Amino acid sequence: MKILFLNGPNLNMLGQREPEVYGRETLTDIEAAVRERAKRLKVKIDFRQSNVEGELVDWIQQAKGSFDVIVLNAAAYTHTSVALRDAISAVELPTIEIHLSNVHAREKFRQKSLIAPVCCGQITGFGSKSYILAVEASVYVNEIKK
Amino acid sequence: MKILFLNGPNLNMLGQREPEVYGRETLTDIEAAVRERAKRLKVKIDFRQSNVEGELVDWIQQAKGSFDVIVLNAAAYTHTSVALRDAISAVELPTIEIHLSNVHAREKFRQKSLIAPVCCGQITGFGSKSYILAVEASVYVNEIKK
Amino acid sequence: MKILFLNGPNLNMLGQREPEVYGRETLTDIEAAVRERAKRLKVKIDFRQSNVEGELVDWIQQAKGSFDVIVLNAAAYTHTSVALRDAISAVELPTIEIHLSNVHAREKFRQKSLIAPVCCGQITGFGSKSYILAVEASVYVNEIKK
Amino acid sequence: MKILFLNGPNLNMLGQREPEVYGRETLTDIEAAVRERAKRLKVKIDFRQSNVEGELVDWIQQAKGSFDVIVLNAAAYTHTSVALRDAISAVELPTIEIHLSNVHAREKFRQKSLIAPVCCGQITGFGSKSYILAVEASVYVNEIKK
Amino acid sequence: MKILFLNGPNLNMLGQREPEVYGRETLTDIEAAVRERAKRLKVKIDFRQSNVEGELVDWIQQAKGSFDVIVLNAAAYTHTSVALRDAISAVELPTIEIHLSNVHAREKFRQKSLIAPVCCGQITGFGSKSYILAVEASVYVNEIKK
Amino acid sequence: MKILFLNGPNLNMLGQREPEVYGRETLTDIEAAVRERAKRLKVKIDFRQSNVEGELVDWIQQAKGSFDVIVLNAAAYTHTSVALRDAISAVELPTIEIHLSNVHAREKFRQKSLIAPVCCGQITGFGSKSYILAVEASVYVNEIKK
Amino acid sequence: MKILFLNGPNLNMLGQREPEVYGRETLTDIEAAVRERAKRLKVKIDFRQSNVEGELVDWIQQAKGSFDVIVLNAAAYTHTSVALRDAISAVELPTIEIHLSNVHAREKFRQKSLIAPVCCGQITGFGSKSYILAVEASVYVNEIKK
Amino acid sequence: MKILFLNGPNLNMLGQREPEVYGRETLTDIEAAVRERAKRLKVKIDFRQSNVEGELVDWIQQAKGSFDVIVLNAAAYTHTSVALRDAISAVELPTIEIHLSNVHAREKFRQKSLIAPVCCGQITGFGSKSYILAVEASVYVNEIKK
Amino acid sequence: MKILFLNGPNLNMLGQREPEVYGRETLTDIEAAVRERAKRLKVKIDFRQSNVEGELVDWIQQAKGSFDVIVLNAAAYTHTSVALRDAISAVELPTIEIHLSNVHAREKFRQKSLIAPVCCGQITGFGSKSYILAVEASVYVNEIKK
Amino acid sequence: MKILFLNGPNLNMLGQREPEVYGRETLTDIEAAVRERAKRLKVKIDFRQSNVEGELVDWIQQAKGSFDVIVLNAAAYTHTSVALRDAISAVELPTIEIHLSNVHAREKFRQKSLIAPVCCGQITGFGSKSYILAVEASVYVNEIKK
Amino acid sequence: MKILFLNGPNLNMLGQREPEVYGRETLTDIEAAVRERAKRLKVKIDFRQSNVEGELVDWIQQAKGSFDVIVLNAAAYTHTSVALRDAISAVELPTIEIHLSNVHAREKFRQKSLIAPVCCGQITGFGSKSYILAVEASVYVNEIKK
Amino acid sequence: MKILFLNGPNLNMLGQREPEVYGRETLTDIEAAVRERAKRLKVKIDFRQSNVEGELVDWIQQAKGSFDVIVLNAAAYTHTSVALRDAISAVELPTIEIHLSNVHAREKFRQKSLIAPVCCGQITGFGSKSYILAVEASVYVNEIKK
Repeated sequence: MKILFLNGPNLNMLGQREPEVYGRETLTDIEAAVRERAKRLKVKIDFRQSNVEGELVDWIQQAKGSFDVIVLNAAAYTHTSVALRDAISAVELPTIEIHLSNVHAREKFRQKSLIAPVCCGQITGFGSKSYILAVEASVYVNEIKK
Repeated sequence: MKILFLNGPNLNMLGQREPEVYGRETLTDIEAAVRERAKRLKVKIDFRQSNVEGELVDWIQQAKGSFDVIVLNAAAYTHTSVALRDAISAVELPTIEIHLSNVHAREKFRQKSLIAPVCCGQITGFGSKSYILAVEASVYVNEIKK
Repeated sequence: MKILFLNGPNLNMLGQREPEVYGRETLTDIEAAVRERAKRLKVKIDFRQSNVEGELVDWIQQAKGSFDVIVLNAAAYTHTSVALRDAISAVELPTIEIHLSNVHAREKFRQKSLIAPVCCGQITGFGSKSYILAVEASVYVNEIKK
Repeated sequence: MKILFLNGPNLNMLGQREPEVYGRETLTDIEAAVRERAKRLKVKIDFRQSNVEGELVDWIQQAKGSFDVIVLNAAAYTHTSVALRDAISAVELPTIEIHLSNVHAREKFRQKSLIAPVCCGQITGFGSKSYILAVEASVYVNEIKK
Repeated sequence: MKILFLNGPNLNMLGQREPEVYGRETLTDIEAAVRERAKRLKVKIDFRQSNVEGELVDWIQQAKGSFDVIVLNAAAYTHTSVALRDAISAVELPTIEIHLSNVHAREKFRQKSLIAPVCCGQITGFGSKSYILAVEASVYVNEIKK
Repeated sequence: MKILFLNGPNLNMLGQREPEVYGRETLTDIEAAVRERAKRLKVKIDFRQSNVEGELVDWIQQAKGSFDVIVLNAAAYTHTSVALRDAISAVELPTIEIHLSNVHAREKFRQKSLIAPVCCGQITGFGSKSYILAVEASVYVNEIKK
Repeated sequence: MKILFLNGPNLNMLGQREPEVYGRETLTDIEAAVRERAKRLKVKIDFRQSNVEGELVDWIQQAKGSFDVIVLNAAAYTHTSVALRDAISAVELPTIEIHLSNVHAREKFRQKSLIAPVCCGQITGFGSKSYILAVEASVYVNEIKK
Repeated sequence: MKILFLNGPNLNMLGQREPEVYGRETLTDIEAAVRERAKRLKVKIDFRQSNVEGELVDWIQQAKGSFDVIVLNAAAYTHTSVALRDAISAVELPTIEIHLSNVHAREKFRQKSLIAPVCCGQITGFGSKSYILAVEASVYVNEIKK
Repeated sequence: MKILFLNGPNLNMLGQREPEVYGRETLTDIEAAVRERAKRLKVKIDFRQSNVEGELVDWIQQAKGSFDVIVLNAAAYTHTSVALRDAISAVELPTIEIHLSNVHAREKFRQKSLIAPVCCGQITGFGSKSYILAVEASVYVNEIKK
Repeated sequence: MKILFLNGPNLNMLGQREPEVYGRETLTDIEAAVRERAKRLKVKIDFRQSNVEGELVDWIQQAKGSFDVIVLNAAAYTHTSVALRDAISAVELPTIEIHLSNVHAREKFRQKSLIAPVCCGQITGFGSKSYILAVEASVYVNEIKK
Repeated sequence: MKILFLNGPNLNMLGQREPEVYGRETLTDIEAAVRERAKRLKVKIDFRQSNVEGELVDWIQQAKGSFDVIVLNAAAYTHTSVALRDAISAVELPTIEIHLSNVHAREKFRQKSLIAPVCCGQITGFGSKSYILAVEASVYVNEIKK
Repeated sequence: MKILFLNGPNLNMLGQREPEVYGRETLTDIEAAVRERAKRLKVKIDFRQSNVEGELVDWIQQAKGSFDVIVLNAAAYTHTSVALRDAISAVELPTIEIHLSNVHAREKFRQKSLIAPVCCGQITGFGSKSYILAVEASVYVNEIKK
């Protein structure tokens, strides 16, 4: 089983960016923690980040055939990108939406997710732990898909 | 460490109620699975259900001093109860909001959670697995609280 | 055939409460008239009232297996209760929504029914006669259900 | 006692039009059933249909003095016609609004009735049975009018 | 100079219809008063009423070449008819919108006029006197048009 | 009979201000025309302008006992002043709202009049002729008041 | 194959009406161009116009059995008529919505089409050429229907 | 004279709950202060709290005949309960709405009170002093009622 | 201790203005009653009224250093004046908002107070008694300020 | 004459992506069909696709001087991209908006096109045939441009 | 060249009022800094402040002929005054809108400027420096006006 | 001191694009003018343009450590990009928002800036002069930052 972790704009700034909201871990720290948990569950992962909406769309499209589940922290694009939504629909892979912060407790525009309706579930508010929980959740959605 | 699992209205109908939306497991099945996972993590749990908003408010209030974390599937009251929101604020225990279905992909009124802004995080859309993931998430939020 | 008549908050005040809006008959008067019509149509009825949202939810859940049709005057809860809506969905019995007054001609918040989308039909504005018409309508919806 | 049954646009297509929504009976079948019930209750009826808003307005105006109650299935004009609303106000006859389908469970624009605030009551969702119930309701509103 | 007075739906009921809102004069009374004032100002008038939106559209179209000004009490169609609005634009005659009652003080839907943006002015709230004032206003708009 | 003509902010700029919208006549020109027409109808008038909302409120209050009708072109305050609205309610004199331009055909915020609901009628869009028509309308509202 | 071209209110004014928006061709000119193209594609057409909403509803209803495709320029009724929408649903013929002007670039109320959701496609903004394109589109939708 | 003080959900947590918003006094402290002031004014009081909406409805209904005035701090139910509103209407006792905090300065959903339109007045923002002021206000509303 | 009572537009009309809404007492009557109560509590007061928004702003600004508390019945300006709101923020004196009528039960635009978020509390609906209660409330807010 | 066909995000997935909505043809199939039709009309075309908003903006900018007409299926960016809208305005080439599906019959956010107001026309709902019709429409808009 | 600097309500409180938002400089300090910069650019200035909307309107009207550019910090009236907007339109002088704080980052009602659409530009958020930048901007707009 | 000037989509078209809105200067002209002013103030600048949202995000992120202030004309992305907003928050450099045209006087969607709340100030409407003013403003914000 293979999971594709995709990270949207500004997540490469983690650790430096508003640490009181997003925590002090870097994206590399998170990737390491994800890899460790994935290893224990015998799951392979790929872990990428981009600031370009169209590049994230490309990656989602290319996941078809190579990955079983997508875990997507679309960050700012969560609230503005119909293109990501359509890519998820097009690729027909189970996709899990995650966020570091509890978006439902923040600005009003962050409470609307354009991608949620085409994802199977959402994990928000647990900092980097949202990623770890998503590994386990991925195994689960991969099983029920069969 | 002790977790209080609270279940809101109609969750006692699980297994019978719209199984295409909510799955075939009963609430008792879910409780058993939660207990098993909790045991492995050496966590104690209490697991309750009520159809009465005020009773859920009572239980949240009484959690103070007895529990470390609340996991709340407020079901229909998620979208209509300011009283539950105020109870969570009043009791000052970390609270995790969970849902069986992906509420963000359903009717518009289910996309607004009145309790989300006072919870620390949200796990939605993984069926009974949302409960299992919440056990692990609880351990995490309990740790960072210290 | 058995019909469960459920009455929501403040309907126990009928006869005393704003008689220019709701008429002078008491709920007991209405129950008597319903029983008479039901008897003529060889239908059994149960007739209950509660001010507690959760108790109405309980009664709807328990109707499964014991009743064929529910006639629900949810009163104030019509406009605020997702819990009642979910209970009706869960119990999968045909449910008829009734009101004494013509709610569509009153305050704006009374023109939105949260339960209407899960009921099979609605009878509003005929005072206690709404209940009588609902007996006949119940027989009809019970027949087409088969 | 005389009741005027008025049917709005496209109801002449009944039986052919989306039978999964509106049923298989034709408008002539419904008229026959209404006449039978009316006969039993010793009530005279007139039963008409038009696709033209202005013709329905004419008929409502002419009802004054000739009819005691109007039963109106305004169909599509329910949601768009202030002219029908004003005609009902002008003619000052008790008017009952009926619909075959449960409009409150359909598209949002069908959930707003412009004529409801000037009608005495509403019966919706019981297919052709809505018409039959309206006969009995008419007798009732005619009595309390006196 | 010739003025076309057009009256929309239900204005033929004047005198009978809600006299506390619309006054006790009939449309024939108003026509007589208009003719008298028009005569004094040496203006010819035509005075018509229809309940059919499309017939009012026809009349506006035919006014081209035969009339100098249109005075339009579109009644209920004021608030719902884009067709009347387009007809006024198409015929390119100065059009004055009038109302018996002060529509701006009534139900919210009566406060929006779809035809106002294509009319040159509006006189509302003076009962039948709105028509008389419109004769004088017509002479004025006819003059400045030249 | 005495009429108080009140003019709101910027009307003292008439003739200079956007003549394509408001015409080339000055407020003094309009006053002269109003006086002439008033004289013919044996009506006395007072004619004032202020840029200060509170001064307009003062003048409306003082009209009680001295004037029979108020004609008010509140200009910009039409859309923002609850104080003027309350003053008109307080003074209980029939008040006619007038505008030079057809406000219903302009920016959206000009289409909402806060004072309309407490005025008896409205004349808009006839340039300075709106004032002349208001003299005649005043005589009329003064008569029916008796 | 037979196509029914239906034209809504004020389209009979084409050529005279706001030529800068709608062009200088008359409806007869357009009909001739449509007939020529139809002839080349060996398609029969009928071409009608009415200002009366109910008459357009009648024609749509009667199309059943006589025509294969409807091409509908509902003009003003596009934005206000639920009756036309219901007629299209009832008749179950593929219907193409066309407009001369680009309605999406005009007033806000022209950007909402009540009939679009029951049509198969839309061609807007090409003047009389919208009609010509619709002939070819009709052939296409007729083919895929089979 | 007798006053019924009713306290809604979570007010039993006073003193513990967000003291920076609600102060450090417990509900028992407040009751004592109210009793003292009531004694001075020779007024009897009853003082209750419940987390259950339906129980508050019951108490309001039972107040009829036993109490002269109701003072209601409905807390969270202020913003969500049509049932409380209907109970106040049904019981026809003068009711004073109070709040500890200035609800008009808090979250948007707390700025809408569903019960305000059926209360005679509102006292908000003075902490426990809101209760004391309500005693005096009750004496006043009781007097003018006579 | 000194309190500044400020009264907004049209309050000088009290006693004459809509007595069924605002009562029969004049502003002078109310001032006398306030003075009496203030005397008993050994508090000095100043009591002013203006119809001019800017003058009320001036008075609030000048209160700094001379008064301890402001009691403000901003009347119509409550709903339209950001200037008053900013003045209260600027002067940093505790301010109590009062109203004679229960504004929350009136027109929708009266239910929004622009000044409430910068006031410490609100007393509405007790007629002139709202002023008397405000004296006591002022003493209270002055004490906790220290 | 040269036409630039631009395809937005996810259109490279055509044939694989939700074929019940978008059909089974690939983008290459469509290009071939377009080329064939273009050849017959002696028109040259260029045909491109990108998932990157900024790349589409680049291509539109570069079209100036090289192409006569742009045919744009902006897909998801139709609803979110002001940048594409501004590019079309900047380049001042006639642009035709096309869609495979009937966007007006889908989710609400797909019913709003940000680019429509700067395009000359729109063809939607005919699957790949929308592209073919656009070739002919392009010839037309190119002619009238001259 | 002459610039008129106008300051709206509460700006006379600068230095005292919420210094964390508006800074510690007084309006006199700002005037001095403006004068210095103006001197360097050989521009004359006039600098005024008023709390009265109507007085600001007067000053704008009187600027005609005496000043070349107006720099307006309308403060609270920015968001509520149509009168100021109309005055700017009437006087036809280039007007620059300035604010001390970044209004676009504050309360929602401060994000809407009624005067912006009739100003040539806006400078916000630079504290007293907004005034200095406006001197230079004034020179620029005065030049391009010629 | 170093300033990073960033220009969003379509600004590379300046001079060619709608010159009546954006002026005739090219972006190179503007850069030259900015460099000249910067030189006089002894400030270094970098000046870039991109049509790709993600590239602008990259540049903002890389500014950390290399630049003191960012001046951002985000053009179309101003109204649609949460990613740019988050980048500005993440990089924690003072950012000044500029626009050539007065966006507050244009289409409604251009009046909402998603980036304004995280910028320190805004300069709009002065054409290329907005850039020049921003140099001076940058020096100012850089000073107060220290």
